Amino acid sequence: MGPAKSKKDKLVLDTSLFVNPEVRNDFGRSPTEAMNNFLELAEQVPSLEFYMPPSIFEELLNFVDKRRIPGALLAVIHQKSPCIHEMTTPAVFLYELIEDMRQRINKGLRVAEKAVRSAGDEGEREVIKGMRKGYREALREGILDSKEDVDLILLAKELDAVLVTLDQGAIKWAEKLGIRWLMPEKFKEYLESFIDKSGK
Amino acid sequence: MGPAKSKKDKLVLDTSLFVNPEVRNDFGRSPTEAMNNFLELAEQVPSLEFYMPPSIFEELLNFVDKRRIPGALLAVIHQKSPCIHEMTTPAVFLYELIEDMRQRINKGLRVAEKAVRSAGDEGEREVIKGMRKGYREALREGILDSKEDVDLILLAKELDAVLVTLDQGAIKWAEKLGIRWLMPEKFKEYLESFIDKSGK
Repeated sequence: MGPAKSKKDKLVLDTSLFVNPEVRNDFGRSPTEAMNNFLELAEQVPSLEFYMPPSIFEELLNFVDKRRIPGALLAVIHQKSPCIHEMTTPAVFLYELIEDMRQRINKGLRVAEKAVRSAGDEGEREVIKGMRKGYREALREGILDSKEDVDLILLAKELDAVLVTLDQGAIKWAEKLGIRWLMPEKFKEYLESFIDKSGK
Repeated sequence: MGPAKSKKDKLVLDTSLFVNPEVRNDFGRSPTEAMNNFLELAEQVPSLEFYMPPSIFEELLNFVDKRRIPGALLAVIHQKSPCIHEMTTPAVFLYELIEDMRQRINKGLRVAEKAVRSAGDEGEREVIKGMRKGYREALREGILDSKEDVDLILLAKELDAVLVTLDQGAIKWAEKLGIRWLMPEKFKEYLESFIDKSGK
């Protein structure tokens, strides 16, 4: 027996891994297939523990065919919320979050003003469609913008786990908390590297 | 000598007290006059200590005639930032802040959509003016929306002080942190009550 790590390393997984085609295609053609193939791989890596906040798991269930998800999945991916009523975050986070939002709110208003000005030139429906896109980009992208995102980073913090997500907002805030994260597009190779080693 | 409180009670003051006519008029007709009259009262209440975050003090200086503010003011109102790099806040705050913002962002988009739809009926300038107002109300009012607000609540928390502000967003968040606050419209009477007592 070689020198074994006494403690299992933990990973916190986001829905995006099984949904976003960019990464999901490594695992399967559909979210359900991706889940099952991940499961098969994960079972061969006893040195890793996988976690998912229940809010994220629930999101995932919207994308997969529940009947085709084996019960073993629930044994492999532990569902756990962060202890949000016990944990604290640095006060400086409030400043950063509020400053970030403030700038985005101003950007959102500029998007809306531009739309009103162009309302005469194009069809109303087109203008509103374009505005919604611009507004969403201004106010939501790259920001910590949902409870699910906060669940991900706080759970990773609590467990001292590696975060695996495609969400840039979550990654940005994970870095502020000193949370390790993994390039999601290398997630499959990462898992396989453990299997290769144990096979030697 | 009667039974004296061994520790001085502390108050954290917001600019609004000296600027917003609703409360400022209790102290004087202009911000500068209000400041000076407050100063006169405050000097007679040695049992209270007054604090203001530097960010708030700087805001205040935009409203007053600096030449007419006596140096004694700086001895009465202590300028102090909260220790933001040492303090922490409950993690649940992140959730509440993000959930609040999320709802407001959606409201802001509805305001913008309505403006685009009415762009044909009214003059462009009027539509944009109305939209700005609605958007600001949707996204900014009653929310913790500036670094200055965060300074106020964190300083009050750090000092275990009473917060005196007209800002509803700051009051709402102060309550979450168990910070005492004072009805700003009673601030002058509150100060006077200390003077009456000491005169007896």
